[in-house]
Amino acid sequence: MATVKNGTVVYAEHPTDHIISGVTTKYIEEDIDLDNVPLNGGVLINTLALSSDPYMRYRMRDPSISMFCPVIPLGQPIDNFGIGTIIRSEDPAYKPGDFVEGYINFQEYSIWPGPPEQQHGLRYLNKLDRAPGLPATIYTGTLGLAGKSAFSAYDVFAKENKVLFVSGAAGPVGTFVVEYARICNPKLKIIGSAGSAEKVEIMKKIGCDVTINYKEQDTAEILKEHGPIDIYWDNTSGPTLDAALKNMSHFGLIIACGAISAASNNGEGSIIKNLEEIFQRSITVRGFLYRRGESAKVLPEFYDKITKLVLEGKITSREHRFNGLREAGEALESVHSGKNTGKAVIVVKDE
Amino acid sequence: MATVKNGTVVYAEHPTDHIISGVTTKYIEEDIDLDNVPLNGGVLINTLALSSDPYMRYRMRDPSISMFCPVIPLGQPIDNFGIGTIIRSEDPAYKPGDFVEGYINFQEYSIWPGPPEQQHGLRYLNKLDRAPGLPATIYTGTLGLAGKSAFSAYDVFAKENKVLFVSGAAGPVGTFVVEYARICNPKLKIIGSAGSAEKVEIMKKIGCDVTINYKEQDTAEILKEHGPIDIYWDNTSGPTLDAALKNMSHFGLIIACGAISAASNNGEGSIIKNLEEIFQRSITVRGFLYRRGESAKVLPEFYDKITKLVLEGKITSREHRFNGLREAGEALESVHSGKNTGKAVIVVKDE
Repeated sequence: MATVKNGTVVYAEHPTDHIISGVTTKYIEEDIDLDNVPLNGGVLINTLALSSDPYMRYRMRDPSISMFCPVIPLGQPIDNFGIGTIIRSEDPAYKPGDFVEGYINFQEYSIWPGPPEQQHGLRYLNKLDRAPGLPATIYTGTLGLAGKSAFSAYDVFAKENKVLFVSGAAGPVGTFVVEYARICNPKLKIIGSAGSAEKVEIMKKIGCDVTINYKEQDTAEILKEHGPIDIYWDNTSGPTLDAALKNMSHFGLIIACGAISAASNNGEGSIIKNLEEIFQRSITVRGFLYRRGESAKVLPEFYDKITKLVLEGKITSREHRFNGLREAGEALESVHSGKNTGKAVIVVKDE
Repeated sequence: MATVKNGTVVYAEHPTDHIISGVTTKYIEEDIDLDNVPLNGGVLINTLALSSDPYMRYRMRDPSISMFCPVIPLGQPIDNFGIGTIIRSEDPAYKPGDFVEGYINFQEYSIWPGPPEQQHGLRYLNKLDRAPGLPATIYTGTLGLAGKSAFSAYDVFAKENKVLFVSGAAGPVGTFVVEYARICNPKLKIIGSAGSAEKVEIMKKIGCDVTINYKEQDTAEILKEHGPIDIYWDNTSGPTLDAALKNMSHFGLIIACGAISAASNNGEGSIIKNLEEIFQRSITVRGFLYRRGESAKVLPEFYDKITKLVLEGKITSREHRFNGLREAGEALESVHSGKNTGKAVIVVKDE
């Protein structure tokens, strides 16, 4: 090892609307002496892969706005769920060569937990037993945030049911929910919706019984024909939620997992007509974040149970790979356009 | 007894927007021979009081539209929760003089269950032990739908909490929730909202710690100052729901009881900006109808428990009384304007 260039993506400017690569984010390079950089009791991580998730838009905001997730301070490296290996360690919990997942800076090399001004994200770093043959990138999606969200809430909240509707069903959370629900209940009728012909093909391949291209078809009409819906897994909110509300079973359950349509329209909101169905049909809506509350209880089973299903080919993954940190801004931008298919992942180091 | 005039309010025309007395509804009179009218195994009821509720707007619709509540067929008498006494009976379950509550026609005298074309509402008729000194009208509000809704859902869903926010807090459900919540938890901070200075006075009188006149004040600002909200009792939906979502506690609960703002705007819906808070704050939203599911389980305790609290003056009532069936259309119209205060009740027979 020696002094090398350390590619870094910093948060440069609050977005007024969407994230714009090169404006909201900037790629820079600094020198780092891998042998001698002070660790202050921490570890030096070599980043392998980083996740790009829609919620990152919320972290890129003026600090005066209070939200569920911490801000990224202007001028500091962006951080998010990522995968790396330990190069050096002053912390007895880790040793060189360890495979770790946690909140990792958008840097080729970073010190964890790092200086105080960089300790703004979630502060955790877990050692993982990496399954042979699986790419590091899968630990940012199917075996990461997307999979943990889908698994934990489905396992905890989803009761016996006949009809499941999943929006964003071709995305990393959506495909997991569809495949996992099918494993749990082979007789389930599964309806999926997404916004392109390519995504319709994915939904068919993963086993949706009914598919909706919401840009070309009338979601409410199709739900009326194939419903009522016992469980609606909501990744989008907005108009698809409105269509689902009108077609829920009495005592039906809505699992509120995401709001891509809201995260992507800069907080302007949507007209919702059917909220009164919530009491008229005695619907329960459960919002959750996988690390908190009831849904967190099943997480200890996650890696054992799901890694096995992945290796058996029963839970599948699709990735949209961005190569190198120079493409990280584009990766962050992409998850709001709906154009990419598969989990957006930044491959920082090719293995 | 003999042949008398029988005042009746029939459903005359589907409303395009609001209910209009004399257009949507018509008052007519027919003769009825109280001694000899055939009962066909049923009973003859002398109506004392009838309830006017916002949801009645939903029952007045084209039958091709499917909803949670049955339609009223055009040309037939309107029916809703009401109170009466039995005059004659061919059903061994009832005898003359019995005090009953149930779905009763908007008629001075009606036969229950009546001819098939009138059996469109909820078909039930319960005998009640009337508490001495209480007016019949209270059994349409505080000891009727409003009270049962408030009691059952509060008892079943409301967990330990510090801050309760109630919209429509000067109405029959709202005042019950505020007073009952205070009895259950004297230290609770209760925030109420409503739309007039007169209603603000009611909210203060029943024990709200913080009051909001949503027409003149910024609901979100006041909630931010006095929140976060552990439980939001939602009687309105619409913009007040949106303001509450932004000020909920993590793992907070929203009890979806009504949507006056939606029921009153002819299905045009509202712009909702903050639905994503449902997952960001791990919020649960529970829709309910008091007769169904979990909330129904506590109903057997209702009359004993709440009649006592009413007689002790701990649960109070306010009534907006409409005198006689000639004013019934006006009563149905009134609950959407927000102008009346107190439970809208039609006094059919003065006692």
